[in-house]
Amino acid sequence: MNHFKLIFIMTILMGGVAIAGPGDTALFTINNIWMLVSTILVFIMHLGFATLESGLTRAKNTVNILFKNVSIIAIGLLTYALCGFNLMYPGEFSLTGVFGFAGWGITVPQGTAGLIEYADGAYTYFADFIFQAMFAATAATIVSGAVAERIKLSSFLIFSTLYVAFVYPIAGSWKWGAGWLDQMGFYDFAGSTLVHSVGGWAALVGAAVLGPRIGKYGRNGIKTIPIMGHSMPLATIGVFLLWFGWYGFNGGSVLSADPGPVSFVFVTTTLASAAGVMGAMTLSWSLTKKPDLSMVLNGSLAGLVSITAGADIINPMSAVIIGFIAGLLVVASVLFFDRLKIDDPVGAISVHLTCGVWGTLAVGIFSPHHQLVTQLIGVGAYGVFCLVAALGLFYGIKLVFGLRVSEEEEIGGLDLGEHEMEAYAGFQIFTVE
Amino acid sequence: MNHFKLIFIMTILMGGVAIAGPGDTALFTINNIWMLVSTILVFIMHLGFATLESGLTRAKNTVNILFKNVSIIAIGLLTYALCGFNLMYPGEFSLTGVFGFAGWGITVPQGTAGLIEYADGAYTYFADFIFQAMFAATAATIVSGAVAERIKLSSFLIFSTLYVAFVYPIAGSWKWGAGWLDQMGFYDFAGSTLVHSVGGWAALVGAAVLGPRIGKYGRNGIKTIPIMGHSMPLATIGVFLLWFGWYGFNGGSVLSADPGPVSFVFVTTTLASAAGVMGAMTLSWSLTKKPDLSMVLNGSLAGLVSITAGADIINPMSAVIIGFIAGLLVVASVLFFDRLKIDDPVGAISVHLTCGVWGTLAVGIFSPHHQLVTQLIGVGAYGVFCLVAALGLFYGIKLVFGLRVSEEEEIGGLDLGEHEMEAYAGFQIFTVE
Amino acid sequence: MNHFKLIFIMTILMGGVAIAGPGDTALFTINNIWMLVSTILVFIMHLGFATLESGLTRAKNTVNILFKNVSIIAIGLLTYALCGFNLMYPGEFSLTGVFGFAGWGITVPQGTAGLIEYADGAYTYFADFIFQAMFAATAATIVSGAVAERIKLSSFLIFSTLYVAFVYPIAGSWKWGAGWLDQMGFYDFAGSTLVHSVGGWAALVGAAVLGPRIGKYGRNGIKTIPIMGHSMPLATIGVFLLWFGWYGFNGGSVLSADPGPVSFVFVTTTLASAAGVMGAMTLSWSLTKKPDLSMVLNGSLAGLVSITAGADIINPMSAVIIGFIAGLLVVASVLFFDRLKIDDPVGAISVHLTCGVWGTLAVGIFSPHHQLVTQLIGVGAYGVFCLVAALGLFYGIKLVFGLRVSEEEEIGGLDLGEHEMEAYAGFQIFTVE
Repeated sequence: MNHFKLIFIMTILMGGVAIAGPGDTALFTINNIWMLVSTILVFIMHLGFATLESGLTRAKNTVNILFKNVSIIAIGLLTYALCGFNLMYPGEFSLTGVFGFAGWGITVPQGTAGLIEYADGAYTYFADFIFQAMFAATAATIVSGAVAERIKLSSFLIFSTLYVAFVYPIAGSWKWGAGWLDQMGFYDFAGSTLVHSVGGWAALVGAAVLGPRIGKYGRNGIKTIPIMGHSMPLATIGVFLLWFGWYGFNGGSVLSADPGPVSFVFVTTTLASAAGVMGAMTLSWSLTKKPDLSMVLNGSLAGLVSITAGADIINPMSAVIIGFIAGLLVVASVLFFDRLKIDDPVGAISVHLTCGVWGTLAVGIFSPHHQLVTQLIGVGAYGVFCLVAALGLFYGIKLVFGLRVSEEEEIGGLDLGEHEMEAYAGFQIFTVE
Repeated sequence: MNHFKLIFIMTILMGGVAIAGPGDTALFTINNIWMLVSTILVFIMHLGFATLESGLTRAKNTVNILFKNVSIIAIGLLTYALCGFNLMYPGEFSLTGVFGFAGWGITVPQGTAGLIEYADGAYTYFADFIFQAMFAATAATIVSGAVAERIKLSSFLIFSTLYVAFVYPIAGSWKWGAGWLDQMGFYDFAGSTLVHSVGGWAALVGAAVLGPRIGKYGRNGIKTIPIMGHSMPLATIGVFLLWFGWYGFNGGSVLSADPGPVSFVFVTTTLASAAGVMGAMTLSWSLTKKPDLSMVLNGSLAGLVSITAGADIINPMSAVIIGFIAGLLVVASVLFFDRLKIDDPVGAISVHLTCGVWGTLAVGIFSPHHQLVTQLIGVGAYGVFCLVAALGLFYGIKLVFGLRVSEEEEIGGLDLGEHEMEAYAGFQIFTVE
Repeated sequence: MNHFKLIFIMTILMGGVAIAGPGDTALFTINNIWMLVSTILVFIMHLGFATLESGLTRAKNTVNILFKNVSIIAIGLLTYALCGFNLMYPGEFSLTGVFGFAGWGITVPQGTAGLIEYADGAYTYFADFIFQAMFAATAATIVSGAVAERIKLSSFLIFSTLYVAFVYPIAGSWKWGAGWLDQMGFYDFAGSTLVHSVGGWAALVGAAVLGPRIGKYGRNGIKTIPIMGHSMPLATIGVFLLWFGWYGFNGGSVLSADPGPVSFVFVTTTLASAAGVMGAMTLSWSLTKKPDLSMVLNGSLAGLVSITAGADIINPMSAVIIGFIAGLLVVASVLFFDRLKIDDPVGAISVHLTCGVWGTLAVGIFSPHHQLVTQLIGVGAYGVFCLVAALGLFYGIKLVFGLRVSEEEEIGGLDLGEHEMEAYAGFQIFTVE
């Protein structure tokens, strides 16, 4: 760039309208590319979920979990194109701030190849759509882990389709679609509440409605051994990929490549995750006297979920504190739900719901510009809406199609029962009940 | 960028020549970085192929498959530097539109560090080379899956070296090197034909010349059980990584970071893949009554391969249709080749050849600006050239070195036979014949 | 960008001061985003290390290795924020060119959200910090592989914390912090010495102080079978991810998105890695008559480590030679250290130390602008400092806490001994002593 240092630009004020020059085009281009790179990063989080969830469950249910994760992203993307995007960003609400719908399908806007410059000049219509579409499917994926190893495949797919097509985008419109919670001053930068707790509430309902896996809390009065995941390398790959993708999840939520905020978000996101690892390590090591890998992995995710609501406004030191507390919370929450006999094979409720709520409230605590009470209202509103919606959907599906596989199938594994397929053909594997 | 909002640019029209300013430099820089990011994404597709192919084959041949995949990318990159790049982009053809060669090695062009501004100002010479080099190796990798579990390592390496060094770039020059098919109006945006079917034709020849794996179509008249892949998590990782990398494969093929087309390509690519999943799920589930994970995985790839020829010109709704049909086709094609007793352990022929042809023809069907007949001529020309070249190479190698491992080695596994090594030392694995 | 083609910019030279316009902002933005994308790429190298190291060791120690890798990155990031960054880039040295400290914590600089424009206008303070922070943890991770399968977890974590918090950044300040070696003309573009050999020296000391794993060099006079890694797919995933991440490691070390140098670095990095594969393949295949996957994998890493010192100044042909020699060297080095009975389960010493030294010296040999003798002084200075520091730390920790697990624990595996957890619950695995 040195050869241009001697070239100066004469700039003249003329009536308040900037004439677009190559600099503006370049800025628009880099903003748009950053949104697309972020899209790719959020995409790969779906592989993170797939590997994390299959790693933390038993080998006999692996094909089933992988199948669900591949299906969910496909369904999520297609339904978001069909109606989700236009429910989440309706433009105008037909029920003030609560519900609006801009019509079926993604409308190709005017201009070549759908190019449209938004008011803030940041990115194209299609970049906007595809970034948001990748987000949508994550909410359903969160549920997948909590209901693993016992839910009927077809019933799960029906639930996911409806939840991601209608519940997620309508709830999202309240804040990101400029709905009532946005107008009230509720703050959720990248989705501690809008994505993670929306998924987390459904995970809680799903796990509760289904009941625990056979043998999880003992059987015939006899306490059984804990149900261990079948592949810690897979689970670790999952967490690293999720952390990796989170740079797009949070970094892309700046909605431009603006150097100040994007760099800042990278630092808070990173430090919260690292602190989450240390928090979970500290509490689990002191409780059990053993360094527990799965707790440390969930600690990283806990830190990430918790910083997501305020990654652009929480200062780095506070990000460390918020992440560390999330690491403690996730361990405590796993023990808590276990005591309630709500069986969540991968800890999804603790990671996404508990830490999603914590992160949203933390904005009210650590940011001088936001109110704790408004954050509480937002958390509560999403809780009520998602609980009601998830209960309705799960009970409805239970009534019509049934929700849980047979005892024989559960014991033999869903891979053979649902798919007539093994995840590890040739390997000698003991079936753990 | 707010502090510049008050600064306006005086722009004056003067004779049609733009004086380069910081804006042009910035635009050049972002275009170039996007090409490099795309290069990285295409690179990681090689890990996708490695994991997909090893996941869908047996544990006893895993080291062999991984070794091939690591070797191919190294060989592909080095031969592309040696001669491939200059065969594919010869500048001038010595045989009109059919063959040209710009000389051995990559020539460091004039200017600091090889910086050269192309006519369209999009990226440097070295960015161009490295992006194209990553593409080259994929063609050979596609073959690897179809000939897996029975081909001799050294023979495969010789084939790959020759195919990637000469066949792929000469064929590529016909379209991307501005050769005869380009002049005729044939369209292939990112390589449904130039990459995927070029690999696919060789995969077909290789699988046919080698014959099926022992036991695949029964033995001594007894139908055996199907040969299952040994790790569905590995296969799933492979598909997600391939989808991930495809954003660079297709997105980078825009050859700039131009916001409109790149965003558009992201949307068509995504929707086609998602629709491919649904297409494959629909057909395989209704045929076999079981949700088949490997079919759904191949459905995603089928969608991706099929949209690659027209990702920049097919509208989103058509992309869904093309992808969905590809998902149906890949299932039908797998069954078809199985009936022909052409044994393709990973479905590479169906994914890359069948859907590559389909995607190329779909451009002629769905785009009002392209002719189906021209697309057919292109498909045919590549088919003839690749079939002849692959047959020649495979038969030549068979004659001189032999092509297939011994029956003992095949049954015992190529890992022990070729490498004296196990992929999973310590694990109890049943050898499936 | 077409609609701007008719708009021309009037540029006027006036007195040497550039008035910032949208072009400068765009350039700053793309430079900054490239630093952040590079940060993400370096981040994922930690997953590469985690999978490579666990793949090349035994299944009974997998949880332990994964736990270490997750912990190290968390510790590395937090200590770098606490003191590492300000030790490595002290601004002013209190002991001329050798030691300086800019204070505890990362100081939020003036300006919104920590935005600060450096003298060269390339990126923000926070982008600088987070890119460098990701580098820091790699040095400690390198050690992890060499001491695997026998070191006590807590002792390793203490060592890593101290090494990454103090030794790495103080050593780094000598060159990248503008210290004495920088003033002397020592050249190390992206860390063949500053990162890889700094990690490699500690790996050598650690492996030597700990002694070999039980059974590695025979027991009771009986030579045992070699200790094989338990998952070659994991190891392969690791190498591909490391190669992938290296584009950020080397590409980001340009410290801007400047098209010329970044593209150039991509080409040299790629060709050196490919040549490393071929070098290792050539030597190992001719020595053992068998194509050894683990050697080929290490060959790729050898090529990458060796080009890192001069990736921006070595021409592509020399990059091939340097990488190929590194591939030969890594095989020879593995055999050499094995003969010395220094047990390095994953070959970390050979990859990072041997090839790090080779790459640094290669700059003095292949670049006309650098002196071999200065490069030797640099290599020697880092060697002495790191050897002394690592010896001091390892012996100190050995004295106070002990360094090695008990024989029973080592035989039973660190997963059960340290973590009471299995990596592959349900799988039948033979414990290889």
